[in-house]
Amino acid sequence: MQFQHLRHRSIYACICVSDFKENLEAVSKAISECSFLAIDGEFTGLNTSSHNIHAFDTPEERYQKLRQGAMEFLLVQFGICTFHFDEEQGKYITRAFSFYVFPRPHNRQAPDIRFLCQSSSIDFMVAQNFDFNKVFKDGIPYLLPSDEQKLRESLQQKHQIMEKSDVSSPGFSPSSHQKNQPKIPAEHREFIEDVCKKVEEFEKSDLDVMSLAPCNGYARLLIYRNVKARFPARIQMETNTDNKKVQYIVVSKTKSPEDAKRKLEEKKAEDYEQLDDAVGFSKVIRMISQSGKLVVGHNMLLDVLHTLHQFISPLPEDYEEFKSMTKCCLPRLLDTKLMATRPPLKDQLQYFSLGELHKTLQSKPFVVPNIVFPEDVPSYDNSGEQLHQAGYDAYITGLCFITMANYLGSVQKPPQDAVTPDSPLLQGYVNRLYLMRINDIPYIDLSRPDPLPSREHVFHVRFPSEWKASDLNHLFSPFGNIQIVWLDETSAFVGLYKKEQAHTVLRALTKGDNYHVISYNDYRKRITELTPT
Amino acid sequence: MQFQHLRHRSIYACICVSDFKENLEAVSKAISECSFLAIDGEFTGLNTSSHNIHAFDTPEERYQKLRQGAMEFLLVQFGICTFHFDEEQGKYITRAFSFYVFPRPHNRQAPDIRFLCQSSSIDFMVAQNFDFNKVFKDGIPYLLPSDEQKLRESLQQKHQIMEKSDVSSPGFSPSSHQKNQPKIPAEHREFIEDVCKKVEEFEKSDLDVMSLAPCNGYARLLIYRNVKARFPARIQMETNTDNKKVQYIVVSKTKSPEDAKRKLEEKKAEDYEQLDDAVGFSKVIRMISQSGKLVVGHNMLLDVLHTLHQFISPLPEDYEEFKSMTKCCLPRLLDTKLMATRPPLKDQLQYFSLGELHKTLQSKPFVVPNIVFPEDVPSYDNSGEQLHQAGYDAYITGLCFITMANYLGSVQKPPQDAVTPDSPLLQGYVNRLYLMRINDIPYIDLSRPDPLPSREHVFHVRFPSEWKASDLNHLFSPFGNIQIVWLDETSAFVGLYKKEQAHTVLRALTKGDNYHVISYNDYRKRITELTPT
Ligand SMILES: Nc1nc2c(ncn2[C@@H]2O[C@H](COP(=O)(O)OP(=O)(O)O)[C@@H](O)[C@H]2O)c(=O)[nH]1
Ligand SMILES: Nc1nc2c(ncn2[C@@H]2O[C@H](COP(=O)(O)OP(=O)(O)O)[C@@H](O)[C@H]2O)c(=O)[nH]1
Repeated sequence: MQFQHLRHRSIYACICVSDFKENLEAVSKAISECSFLAIDGEFTGLNTSSHNIHAFDTPEERYQKLRQGAMEFLLVQFGICTFHFDEEQGKYITRAFSFYVFPRPHNRQAPDIRFLCQSSSIDFMVAQNFDFNKVFKDGIPYLLPSDEQKLRESLQQKHQIMEKSDVSSPGFSPSSHQKNQPKIPAEHREFIEDVCKKVEEFEKSDLDVMSLAPCNGYARLLIYRNVKARFPARIQMETNTDNKKVQYIVVSKTKSPEDAKRKLEEKKAEDYEQLDDAVGFSKVIRMISQSGKLVVGHNMLLDVLHTLHQFISPLPEDYEEFKSMTKCCLPRLLDTKLMATRPPLKDQLQYFSLGELHKTLQSKPFVVPNIVFPEDVPSYDNSGEQLHQAGYDAYITGLCFITMANYLGSVQKPPQDAVTPDSPLLQGYVNRLYLMRINDIPYIDLSRPDPLPSREHVFHVRFPSEWKASDLNHLFSPFGNIQIVWLDETSAFVGLYKKEQAHTVLRALTKGDNYHVISYNDYRKRITELTPT
Repeated sequence: MQFQHLRHRSIYACICVSDFKENLEAVSKAISECSFLAIDGEFTGLNTSSHNIHAFDTPEERYQKLRQGAMEFLLVQFGICTFHFDEEQGKYITRAFSFYVFPRPHNRQAPDIRFLCQSSSIDFMVAQNFDFNKVFKDGIPYLLPSDEQKLRESLQQKHQIMEKSDVSSPGFSPSSHQKNQPKIPAEHREFIEDVCKKVEEFEKSDLDVMSLAPCNGYARLLIYRNVKARFPARIQMETNTDNKKVQYIVVSKTKSPEDAKRKLEEKKAEDYEQLDDAVGFSKVIRMISQSGKLVVGHNMLLDVLHTLHQFISPLPEDYEEFKSMTKCCLPRLLDTKLMATRPPLKDQLQYFSLGELHKTLQSKPFVVPNIVFPEDVPSYDNSGEQLHQAGYDAYITGLCFITMANYLGSVQKPPQDAVTPDSPLLQGYVNRLYLMRINDIPYIDLSRPDPLPSREHVFHVRFPSEWKASDLNHLFSPFGNIQIVWLDETSAFVGLYKKEQAHTVLRALTKGDNYHVISYNDYRKRITELTPT
């Protein structure tokens, strides 16, 4: 989630595909040494238009709605900030990273992802100088373990075929698939003859490698099928792509069986290295997962869903399965928004967005913690583009966490000094994820059944599409103020502020000429009966 | 569609939201004066993964598949190149424009569009230096006429309420909706009292306008509901947004009833101007539509679908309705890819992508036409970012059209000189849109029923998922070479190259242990019976 109001010197490394490999070691070290880490994601959108979240969602309904969004929108930037507590100095040593990530299809077998964008989110992000060109051009690729496995198997198959065709039995055509292909269409014969002549000359020359002129996919197919067949085992062909995505064929000579074998081994090693590159950012998430460290986020449910879905495994349909998957992959989570909105911190705070929380936590009764940025992480100038990035927001989140944790310690009797991530004072917050806009269910509990409040003061109402809020207010006026949650043009949930009036409603209303009222609980029962399991 | 291989001095104006208004007049003039115009679009993706196009689609099936893509992906750049034939000079006066377009939500009522991106398309576009930051930040907004209408009506309602509340009956609260809202929560009372004090001081001061400190949406709501109500008719409040999307309230004084009325009129005018800005690029498409000019494109079906869907009206489900809608909105279309792939031009050409076509058309027997770029259109340096943009591709398309049209004239007996867009020589191409990858149906005919070829040599085959192409080749080996179109893991269409073998297939094959063959026509009949109409 973006974070709007603060200016700060830039303190995080901004990592994209070109410098990912060289920084991976530093990232790994930062994760394995830290006391805890904070994360933050940037997404191309938040909610699909058909999945409005509202105050009377159950935790499971909320999961289903957010799951839909997490499956369709894309996480394009991932911020990580590690905090290592140095007891001697009483300081936190902090390293922050912003990773641009993008599912660049690294070759023709790789999944060609479709993802959704929401124009209001995009609009907001560009206003904060989010660099989409950088994401799309230099984003770090990633793969789900299941996709990695598939690609690995298809590489193995490909290598088997190559071994058979190129080494042991020269002249064997790669797959029987291609044997029965139609011959060269008349209009392309001249072109193919030209290429054959070029290859023949190349064979006689001293050159080892020759590039053919760029040509389209169809022409390349014709060349593979018709030219290569005439020079079995003596030449090899490969398609290269230049940096403008223009493709051309490179022809090289096979000098001896040993040479062919060596080239094949080189090609295999290269293929596996390419696959390793394609796994890319997923490695970082696997490191976090395996570290078992406390992972902190602000209003982090959506971050958690995107992280699991994009880098670990597609989100399960079943809500309980989601809970156990989360516990298994990210075993210790803590949501600073939940911390802030529960007593005793709630009583000291007014607003709970990350920016406003951070602002409040800079003055009494709170104490700003001691933070050190070591110089082993490359950090950049405080230019406009560096602000409001995921790495920075992750840093602010971690800062808020430390400040609030220390506050909890300070109000103990006797006061406790630095409260560490494993302190019992924090146990009530661990693995509970804040639920936005639901007043009566504060969180999803990953380890236990969720809190289940009474919604006896809530009613489901059907009415004509001309009705406005005023009509509902009028209908319920005998019972005091109401909270309206529109479901569609002809139905809504209505909650009473005066809960003690609940039992009188159904006696008085139930059904009129043009409206129909049932209790929330009855409505839920009907819905569940209608949904096949 | 992008066009890869050419370098050229940049000849088109690149137009985004900041210079759209000032250039609209020039665009309008260019369209109304031209002999014909060429268009080209850039999209965030081409096809959804579940809608593969293939060689045995019917025109209607193809429409349904492409419609799906056009509804989900976004057109983000629109190129227009106008060509005016100057008979005296025998030259084409040419003006080219690239418009960046993006559905920026101009206010809270505007539709918040969700759109799909395909990572391979995005990857290709950034490799050609397509500037996504520019699209997202500076894209020209647009509205469907139906959305414009809705927004206009809601403005009228809003103005009515404003007139009642602010002018005739001071103190009237804007909507009864708000009357029954709960009072200020205890924790925000102090904040609201502070704001009230500020407004009171402002009322007594000499200032006309005062900005409040930026605050979040909830805080603004509290202010509107609770502060404004205490100063009826004497002050006005409005929310402003700075260039970082930070929102704050501006308070201004109402000096007299006349002053209030004047302010209201100003506000109304401003609202309508904002709406007019939001209509944005749709105006250009309306100009093209109303001009009735010949619109040329290369492989333009997808361009046409996106143009209609995004700027004119959602694409109808019904195929015939789509045809009549197209004829009505873009009454004269010509596809250069169709021209190139039909005799007599086909016989002079080998490859048909825009880049390769353009290359071939630069040498004999073709004659490069005379083109003049007048200086009244701003054009930019030939920097990397300017190449391969829609305006440039539209220009190349128009150039190819003129060259091919002139060629058609040159092979007449006696040869005809400049062939104009209304020449009878072109009638066979007008309102026929090229169908990619369908060998036996060259085009969609917008004016007549589509060509309906016999597909007696095509069969639908079901088989075990382990089958490969070699198994199908083997099964059909008695009948010669085949063309395979995979439908899913256990079914495919198989076409015979030797069509005369068609009648022997069903006698010989029909059904084996693990496969099942029926004719294409029977398969289509069953599908149609299964689909409710
Ligand atoms: N009949 C009626 N329907 C409403 C009203 N306000 C909103 N709705 C409908 O309730 C649904 C949800 O609306 P809302 O809660 O505003 O969420 P939104 O769709 O995100 O703006 C939509 O289908 C609206 O058409 C109203 O005043 N009267
Ligand atoms: N049984 C079988 N299915 C195949 C084969 N090749 C492709 N398919 C299936 O056919 C469908 C379409 O594949 P294809 O034509 O390659 O299009 P793509 O999905 O765009 O790559 C997919 O569901 C594939 O799994 C094959 O050799 N054997």
